[in-house]
Amino acid sequence: MTTKTVCELCEQPGGTLLWQDSSCRVVLVEDADYPGFCRVIWKQHVSEMTDLSAPDREHLMATVYAIEAAIREVMKPDKINLASLGNLTPHLHWHVIPRYRHDKHFPQPIWGAGQRAGKPAFMPDWQARLKQNVNSRLSG
Amino acid sequence: MTTKTVCELCEQPGGTLLWQDSSCRVVLVEDADYPGFCRVIWKQHVSEMTDLSAPDREHLMATVYAIEAAIREVMKPDKINLASLGNLTPHLHWHVIPRYRHDKHFPQPIWGAGQRAGKPAFMPDWQARLKQNVNSRLSG
Repeated sequence: MTTKTVCELCEQPGGTLLWQDSSCRVVLVEDADYPGFCRVIWKQHVSEMTDLSAPDREHLMATVYAIEAAIREVMKPDKINLASLGNLTPHLHWHVIPRYRHDKHFPQPIWGAGQRAGKPAFMPDWQARLKQNVNSRLSG
Repeated sequence: MTTKTVCELCEQPGGTLLWQDSSCRVVLVEDADYPGFCRVIWKQHVSEMTDLSAPDREHLMATVYAIEAAIREVMKPDKINLASLGNLTPHLHWHVIPRYRHDKHFPQPIWGAGQRAGKPAFMPDWQARLKQNVNSRLSG
Protein backbone atom coordinates (compact mmCIF):
# COMPACT_ATOMS: atom_id res chain seq x y z
CA MET A 1 0.00 0.00 0.00
CA THR A 2 1.33 3.44 -0.84
CA THR A 3 0.37 6.65 0.88
CA LYS A 4 -0.15 9.59 -1.43
CA THR A 5 -0.08 13.09 -0.01
CA VAL A 6 -2.64 15.18 -1.83
CA CYS A 7 -2.35 18.97 -1.83
CA GLU A 8 -5.77 20.63 -1.97
CA LEU A 9 -4.45 23.61 -3.93
CA CYS A 10 -2.61 21.42 -6.44
CA GLU A 11 -5.76 19.36 -7.02
CA GLN A 12 -8.56 21.95 -6.80
CA PRO A 13 -9.03 25.58 -7.80
CA GLY A 14 -9.76 26.65 -4.19
CA GLY A 15 -12.69 28.91 -5.12
CA THR A 16 -14.41 30.52 -8.08
CA LEU A 17 -11.82 31.56 -10.66
CA LEU A 18 -11.66 35.33 -11.29
CA TRP A 19 -8.39 35.54 -13.22
CA GLN A 20 -5.24 33.53 -13.94
CA ASP A 21 -1.99 33.55 -15.84
CA SER A 22 0.69 30.89 -16.18
CA SER A 23 2.06 31.52 -12.64
CA CYS A 24 -0.89 32.25 -10.39
CA ARG A 25 -4.65 32.35 -10.11
CA VAL A 26 -7.13 34.54 -8.25
CA VAL A 27 -10.22 32.90 -6.80
CA LEU A 28 -13.23 34.14 -4.90
CA VAL A 29 -13.68 32.26 -1.62
CA GLU A 30 -17.15 30.86 -0.90
CA ASP A 31 -17.79 32.44 2.51
CA ALA A 32 -21.23 33.90 3.21
CA ASP A 33 -19.80 36.02 6.06
CA TYR A 34 -17.04 37.51 3.88
CA PRO A 35 -18.23 38.55 0.41
CA GLY A 36 -15.27 39.67 -1.67
CA PHE A 37 -12.77 37.45 0.20
CA CYS A 38 -10.22 36.43 -2.48
CA ARG A 39 -7.22 34.14 -2.59
CA VAL A 40 -4.17 34.60 -4.78
CA ILE A 41 -2.62 31.17 -5.30
CA TRP A 42 0.84 30.49 -6.70
CA LYS A 43 0.40 27.55 -9.08
CA GLN A 44 3.67 25.77 -8.38
CA HIS A 45 3.73 23.83 -5.11
CA VAL A 46 6.09 25.84 -2.90
CA SER A 47 5.64 26.67 0.75
CA GLU A 48 7.09 30.10 1.57
CA MET A 49 7.68 33.47 -0.10
CA THR A 50 11.43 32.96 0.35
CA ASP A 51 11.17 29.75 -1.71
CA LEU A 52 10.38 31.94 -4.75
CA SER A 53 12.87 33.88 -6.86
CA ALA A 54 12.77 37.67 -6.47
CA PRO A 55 10.94 38.21 -9.82
CA ASP A 56 8.36 35.56 -8.88
CA ARG A 57 7.76 37.18 -5.47
CA GLU A 58 7.34 40.52 -7.21
CA HIS A 59 4.84 39.04 -9.69
CA LEU A 60 2.82 37.36 -6.94
CA MET A 61 2.71 40.49 -4.79
CA ALA A 62 1.81 42.72 -7.76
CA THR A 63 -1.19 40.41 -8.19
CA VAL A 64 -2.04 40.66 -4.48
CA TYR A 65 -1.90 44.48 -4.65
CA ALA A 66 -4.16 44.51 -7.73
CA ILE A 67 -6.70 42.39 -5.85
CA GLU A 68 -6.44 44.64 -2.80
CA ALA A 69 -7.05 47.69 -5.04
CA ALA A 70 -10.01 46.01 -6.81
CA ILE A 71 -11.58 45.00 -3.49
CA ARG A 72 -11.12 48.51 -2.07
CA GLU A 73 -12.75 50.06 -5.14
CA VAL A 74 -15.68 47.65 -5.46
CA MET A 75 -16.36 46.54 -1.88
CA LYS A 76 -15.39 49.73 0.03
CA PRO A 77 -14.15 47.88 3.13
CA ASP A 78 -13.07 49.57 6.38
CA LYS A 79 -9.81 47.58 6.32
CA ILE A 80 -7.95 45.05 4.19
CA ASN A 81 -6.42 41.96 5.80
CA LEU A 82 -3.58 40.18 3.97
CA ALA A 83 -2.24 36.84 5.14
CA SER A 84 -0.07 33.98 3.92
CA LEU A 85 -0.44 31.21 6.51
CA GLY A 86 -0.64 27.73 4.97
CA ASN A 87 -0.34 25.70 8.18
CA LEU A 88 -2.99 23.25 6.95
CA THR A 89 -2.19 23.61 3.25
CA PRO A 90 1.49 24.50 2.86
CA HIS A 91 1.08 25.62 -0.76
CA LEU A 92 1.82 29.33 -1.14
CA HIS A 93 -1.39 31.41 -1.23
CA TRP A 94 -2.50 34.83 -0.04
CA HIS A 95 -5.78 35.66 1.63
CA VAL A 96 -7.06 39.12 0.67
CA ILE A 97 -10.00 39.89 2.94
CA PRO A 98 -12.27 42.95 3.01
CA ARG A 99 -13.14 43.77 6.63
CA TYR A 100 -16.00 45.88 7.99
CA ARG A 101 -16.69 47.21 11.46
CA HIS A 102 -19.95 45.25 11.46
CA ASP A 103 -18.50 41.94 10.20
CA LYS A 104 -18.57 38.69 12.16
CA HIS A 105 -15.13 38.99 13.82
CA PHE A 106 -14.12 42.68 13.67
CA PRO A 107 -11.70 43.87 15.04
CA GLN A 108 -10.35 40.36 15.53
CA PRO A 109 -8.86 38.32 12.66
CA ILE A 110 -11.46 36.17 10.87
CA TRP A 111 -9.98 32.92 12.25
CA GLY A 112 -11.02 33.37 15.89
CA ALA A 113 -14.39 33.07 17.59
CA GLY A 114 -17.18 35.14 16.02
CA GLN A 115 -18.08 38.35 17.86
CA ARG A 116 -21.58 38.72 16.38
CA ALA A 117 -23.73 37.66 13.44
CA GLY A 118 -22.17 39.36 10.44
CA LYS A 119 -24.37 41.50 8.23
CA PRO A 120 -22.92 41.35 4.75
CA ALA A 121 -25.18 43.48 2.56
CA PHE A 122 -24.07 44.34 -0.94
CA MET A 123 -25.62 45.10 -4.26
CA PRO A 124 -26.48 41.86 -6.11
CA ASP A 125 -23.93 42.60 -8.83
CA TRP A 126 -20.83 42.91 -6.59
CA GLN A 127 -19.38 39.63 -7.82
CA ALA A 128 -19.56 40.60 -11.50
CA ARG A 129 -18.16 44.06 -10.72
CA LEU A 130 -15.28 42.60 -8.73
CA LYS A 131 -14.41 40.14 -11.49
CA GLN A 132 -14.51 42.93 -14.09
CA ASN A 133 -12.36 45.22 -11.92
CA VAL A 134 -9.78 42.47 -11.28
CA ASN A 135 -9.55 41.65 -14.97
CA SER A 136 -9.24 45.29 -16.02
CA ARG A 137 -6.28 45.61 -13.64
CA LEU A 138 -4.54 42.35 -14.54
CA SER A 139 -5.33 41.55 -18.16
CA GLY A 140 -4.20 43.56 -21.09
CA MET B 1 -12.26 69.16 25.78
CA THR B 2 -10.50 67.73 22.75
CA THR B 3 -10.24 64.08 21.86
CA LYS B 4 -6.87 63.00 20.57
CA THR B 5 -6.57 59.74 18.67
CA VAL B 6 -3.32 58.09 19.60
CA CYS B 7 -1.77 55.48 17.31
CA GLU B 8 0.14 52.87 19.29
CA LEU B 9 2.68 52.31 16.51
CA CYS B 10 3.27 56.04 16.02
CA GLU B 11 3.86 56.48 19.75
CA GLN B 12 5.69 53.29 20.74
CA PRO B 13 8.26 50.95 19.17
CA GLY B 14 5.89 47.95 19.35
CA GLY B 15 8.58 45.53 20.56
CA THR B 16 12.33 45.20 21.04
CA LEU B 17 14.14 46.93 18.19
CA LEU B 18 16.25 44.61 16.02
CA TRP B 19 16.91 46.90 13.05
CA GLN B 20 15.66 50.10 11.45
CA ASP B 21 16.24 52.49 8.60
CA SER B 22 14.53 55.77 7.75
CA SER B 23 11.38 54.02 6.42
CA CYS B 24 10.73 51.01 8.61
CA ARG B 25 11.74 49.17 11.74
CA VAL B 26 11.91 45.51 12.75
CA VAL B 27 10.95 44.60 16.29
CA LEU B 28 10.82 41.38 18.27
CA VAL B 29 7.38 40.81 19.79
CA GLU B 30 7.26 39.94 23.50
CA ASP B 31 5.26 36.71 23.35
CA ALA B 32 6.40 33.77 25.50
CA ASP B 33 4.47 31.33 23.29
CA TYR B 34 6.09 32.60 20.08
CA PRO B 35 9.83 33.20 20.37
CA GLY B 36 11.13 34.76 17.17
CA PHE B 37 7.80 36.46 16.34
CA CYS B 38 8.82 39.72 14.61
CA ARG B 39 6.98 42.75 13.29
CA VAL B 40 8.06 44.90 10.37
CA ILE B 41 6.52 48.34 10.87
CA TRP B 42 6.32 51.08 8.26
CA LYS B 43 7.20 54.29 10.08
CA GLN B 44 4.80 56.63 8.29
CA HIS B 45 1.19 56.31 9.43
CA VAL B 46 -0.56 54.70 6.46
CA SER B 47 -3.14 51.95 6.55
CA GLU B 48 -2.81 49.64 3.54
CA MET B 49 -0.12 48.33 1.17
CA THR B 50 -1.92 50.09 -1.71
CA ASP B 51 -1.48 53.40 0.13
CA LEU B 52 2.28 53.09 -0.49
CA SER B 53 4.12 53.87 -3.72
CA ALA B 54 5.45 50.87 -5.65
CA PRO B 55 9.09 51.47 -4.54
CA ASP B 56 7.97 51.80 -0.90
CA ARG B 57 5.98 48.54 -1.11
CA GLU B 58 9.03 46.85 -2.59
CA HIS B 59 11.26 48.18 0.17
CA LEU B 60 8.86 47.06 2.89
CA MET B 61 8.42 43.58 1.42
CA ALA B 62 12.18 43.16 0.86
CA THR B 63 12.51 43.77 4.61
CA VAL B 64 9.75 41.24 5.35
CA TYR B 65 11.49 38.61 3.18
CA ALA B 66 14.82 39.27 4.93
CA ILE B 67 13.13 38.71 8.30
CA GLU B 68 11.44 35.55 7.02
CA ALA B 69 14.84 34.27 5.81
CA ALA B 70 16.54 35.17 9.11
CA ILE B 71 13.80 33.45 11.14
CA ARG B 72 13.99 30.33 8.95
CA GLU B 73 17.75 30.16 9.36
CA VAL B 74 17.91 30.81 13.10
CA MET B 75 14.61 29.41 14.43
CA LYS B 76 14.07 26.48 11.99
CA PRO B 77 10.26 26.71 12.08
CA ASP B 78 7.91 24.22 10.40
CA LYS B 79 6.09 27.09 8.70
CA ILE B 80 6.19 30.87 8.39
CA ASN B 81 3.01 32.92 8.80
CA LEU B 82 2.89 36.42 7.28
CA ALA B 83 0.03 38.80 7.97
CA SER B 84 -0.86 42.47 7.63
CA LEU B 85 -4.13 42.93 9.53
CA GLY B 86 -4.26 46.21 11.48
CA ASN B 87 -7.93 46.12 12.45
CA LEU B 88 -7.13 47.40 15.94
CA THR B 89 -4.09 49.46 14.93
CA PRO B 90 -4.55 50.60 11.31
CA HIS B 91 -0.89 51.54 10.92
CA LEU B 92 0.82 49.37 8.28
CA HIS B 93 2.80 46.52 9.88
CA TRP B 94 3.62 42.91 9.05
CA HIS B 95 3.60 40.01 11.45
CA VAL B 96 6.33 37.46 10.64
CA ILE B 97 5.67 34.41 12.81
CA PRO B 98 7.65 31.17 13.10
CA ARG B 99 5.21 28.27 13.55
CA TYR B 100 5.89 24.78 14.91
CA ARG B 101 3.76 21.65 14.94
CA HIS B 102 3.93 21.69 18.73
CA ASP B 103 3.10 25.39 19.20
CA LYS B 104 0.07 26.67 21.10
CA HIS B 105 -2.29 27.04 18.10
CA PHE B 106 -0.88 24.90 15.28
CA PRO B 107 -2.29 24.32 12.67
CA GLN B 108 -4.65 27.21 13.42
CA PRO B 109 -3.59 30.87 13.12
CA ILE B 110 -2.18 32.26 16.37
CA TRP B 111 -5.21 34.52 16.91
CA GLY B 112 -7.76 31.80 17.70
CA ALA B 113 -8.26 29.64 20.80
CA GLY B 114 -5.15 27.78 21.98
CA GLN B 115 -5.04 24.08 21.12
CA ARG B 116 -2.52 23.09 23.79
CA ALA B 117 0.19 24.50 26.06
CA GLY B 118 2.95 25.56 23.71
CA LYS B 119 6.44 24.23 24.33
CA PRO B 120 8.87 26.81 23.02
CA ALA B 121 12.35 25.47 23.69
CA PHE B 122 15.34 27.21 22.18
CA MET B 123 18.96 27.75 22.94
CA PRO B 124 19.39 30.70 25.30
CA ASP B 125 21.20 32.72 22.63
CA TRP B 126 18.46 32.62 19.94
CA GLN B 127 17.61 36.30 20.40
CA ALA B 128 21.19 37.48 19.89
CA ARG B 129 21.59 35.16 16.88
CA LEU B 130 18.37 36.41 15.31
CA LYS B 131 19.37 40.04 15.77
CA GLN B 132 22.78 39.35 14.26
CA ASN B 133 21.26 37.45 11.31
CA VAL B 134 18.71 40.23 10.63
CA ASN B 135 21.43 42.88 10.72
CA SER B 136 23.77 40.92 8.46
CA ARG B 137 20.94 40.71 5.90
CA LEU B 138 19.75 44.31 6.11
CA SER B 139 22.72 46.47 6.99
CA GLY B 140 25.24 46.83 4.31
